[in-house]
Amino acid sequence: MIKECFDNVRKNVPLVHNITNYVTVNDVANIILACGASPIMSDEPEDVSDITSICGGLNINIGTLNKNSIEAMIIAGKKSNELGHVVLLDPVGAGASKLRTDTALRVAREIKLDVIRGNISEIKTIANGSGTTKGVDADVEDAVTEDNLNDAVKFIKDLSKRLNVIIAITGAIDLVSDGDKCYIIRNGLPQMGAITGTGCQLSGLMTAFLIANKNNKLEAAAAAVCAMGAAGEIGYSYMQKGDGNSTYRNRIIDAIYNMDGEILSKYAKYEIR
Amino acid sequence: MIKECFDNVRKNVPLVHNITNYVTVNDVANIILACGASPIMSDEPEDVSDITSICGGLNINIGTLNKNSIEAMIIAGKKSNELGHVVLLDPVGAGASKLRTDTALRVAREIKLDVIRGNISEIKTIANGSGTTKGVDADVEDAVTEDNLNDAVKFIKDLSKRLNVIIAITGAIDLVSDGDKCYIIRNGLPQMGAITGTGCQLSGLMTAFLIANKNNKLEAAAAAVCAMGAAGEIGYSYMQKGDGNSTYRNRIIDAIYNMDGEILSKYAKYEIR
Amino acid sequence: MIKECFDNVRKNVPLVHNITNYVTVNDVANIILACGASPIMSDEPEDVSDITSICGGLNINIGTLNKNSIEAMIIAGKKSNELGHVVLLDPVGAGASKLRTDTALRVAREIKLDVIRGNISEIKTIANGSGTTKGVDADVEDAVTEDNLNDAVKFIKDLSKRLNVIIAITGAIDLVSDGDKCYIIRNGLPQMGAITGTGCQLSGLMTAFLIANKNNKLEAAAAAVCAMGAAGEIGYSYMQKGDGNSTYRNRIIDAIYNMDGEILSKYAKYEIR
Repeated sequence: MIKECFDNVRKNVPLVHNITNYVTVNDVANIILACGASPIMSDEPEDVSDITSICGGLNINIGTLNKNSIEAMIIAGKKSNELGHVVLLDPVGAGASKLRTDTALRVAREIKLDVIRGNISEIKTIANGSGTTKGVDADVEDAVTEDNLNDAVKFIKDLSKRLNVIIAITGAIDLVSDGDKCYIIRNGLPQMGAITGTGCQLSGLMTAFLIANKNNKLEAAAAAVCAMGAAGEIGYSYMQKGDGNSTYRNRIIDAIYNMDGEILSKYAKYEIR
Repeated sequence: MIKECFDNVRKNVPLVHNITNYVTVNDVANIILACGASPIMSDEPEDVSDITSICGGLNINIGTLNKNSIEAMIIAGKKSNELGHVVLLDPVGAGASKLRTDTALRVAREIKLDVIRGNISEIKTIANGSGTTKGVDADVEDAVTEDNLNDAVKFIKDLSKRLNVIIAITGAIDLVSDGDKCYIIRNGLPQMGAITGTGCQLSGLMTAFLIANKNNKLEAAAAAVCAMGAAGEIGYSYMQKGDGNSTYRNRIIDAIYNMDGEILSKYAKYEIR
Repeated sequence: MIKECFDNVRKNVPLVHNITNYVTVNDVANIILACGASPIMSDEPEDVSDITSICGGLNINIGTLNKNSIEAMIIAGKKSNELGHVVLLDPVGAGASKLRTDTALRVAREIKLDVIRGNISEIKTIANGSGTTKGVDADVEDAVTEDNLNDAVKFIKDLSKRLNVIIAITGAIDLVSDGDKCYIIRNGLPQMGAITGTGCQLSGLMTAFLIANKNNKLEAAAAAVCAMGAAGEIGYSYMQKGDGNSTYRNRIIDAIYNMDGEILSKYAKYEIR
């Protein structure tokens, strides 16, 4: 299934509407193009309804939210719901500020989401309705490890069931669950954490995968996580003396550009519980 | 003439005011620096009048427009007109939303433009006063091909005459016309379409070329199109195993950095009708 | 001391709040990650107070200021002062427009700054309360050279004393002074000027260094300047045929990623007057 999920993206060329932060937006656009999809960015309340209507899905990322873009998220989200489009929320920094926490909760409340993708601290904030994350990166004490894996799987399944949404928690070990099944994914490298926006990029990529696989959303979300991790592994294999996080960023996007379903299925390392 | 157009940029170091989208702005700034010019970005209505006054020309790109930046476009455009500066419009996504179509038409109506540069779908939207483009990329059925080239040349000449502005339509075959003559340019590679913002970059580059060649705007616009296409060809010749669209993006800007009039004139592939 | 300043960044992993321009923000985030620190970007007035509270310091960059972000700068700056956090101002384009000059002066007046870092034209604008810079790059006639070095050192010391703030003027020769001592730094390469945002990147890097070395701010600021220059030299040594400013940008960030205190102390070229 993982293989078909990627191949469907290249076949269908989904159009992805992104309301996303200005820090990582260029990389998000390029990774969406790299996987064979097409990105549009628009965050003006008067513009988003038209734009989202011509797309197949919406990627909402609150990384550099402002009052204008929050309004745009709600308008675009409701329009997407009306049209039966896929909607993904990336609650960047939920728990780090009241506005971010409130906005993530508001989007989750007012819009029917298909997927929420974040790091463990952001997802815990959404689970608890409040939080105290230490920035936009996950707190070390929250990390999903082999030791607390059973608890983490139970946590994500319960939360997914309660919120009726697919949840993807990414970190050293990635979890993707629809409440029933949980993908446990062990792709990727710790060096990816030294690049800004690998999470944002994954959210864009995942939205493209979801649009191209609307009848198979759980697998699509898991396939996108595997693809991003595999790209991290493939990209790293091309690193040379003197290369660092900036070149690594390019190599990861390049790896998605050169990837297809067959390569992905060779690299994907996951189990289902 | 193509050769001199580029050499004049390196000689005159034009200062380019850009009101542009936040998706591709970094690449626009770097390609303007790469060609020997200097970029400034400013989109706050209270700031743009002063900023545009110290520049030689203005590049208006509506890619992530908002109400604030639209106001800034009008203010900066009128100030540029007052000062006799070059003004270029890149109507990103015209046809994809009412706000974008209306803004492109409004800018074209209220500001004396020197050049409008877009893809064929965006330019058709401007020609018709409305449109239904499928995002920020051109619709396949609109594409300029060898088969419909005569019609396309007639279309661009007529539109250029009617609007009294140089028009540049870029795609697999590029057209640049002032209503009288039409450059037909066959530089570039299809792989450039997998990079976000090659169009935006070209608009920035072209504004620099226009400023440095104010008495020769048609050739300057055509030279910029040739330069971007040549950079795509040169950049691609440096691609190695594992490279993809993100590295290709860097290589294109690098190719402009290493280009001069002589190299450009060797690569430029065009005819005039 | 230079060595320890860098090592303290990697040891303490400072969290840096950036209110910065959308042109170079991605590179600023990646260079902050490259040096071992962690970036957060937030410029919404309702968000910045919470965000700055969880950080160790604030980097204010006025490169693409707007009314909303100016308000955010003031709110975040005052909160940072309350909490005893480090605050740095990068007055991008001060002198190029009234709004930029006024904003730089207002921030310097209303907020207790630790460091102001800019090019010579921007710093002269702050010294004079007005200015006429020709964009976001320094005017050639202002440049600090070996010939006018004594005067420049006197200028920066006097200004630093008068404003009671560490000042860093960067260019071919860099000066960093607290009014008493002045570091004269001769790292870096002229080719860095063809990359957008090396100044912005340095401001982000410097804020990380200041947070990690709060009892030694002058040395921390000087160490950051040396690190950026050294990265320019190291990065350039990896340049290959066909590479230009876009690849060079990646190589500089990569060089910071691979740098530590020991490498820095080997490359640092400075004297103290």
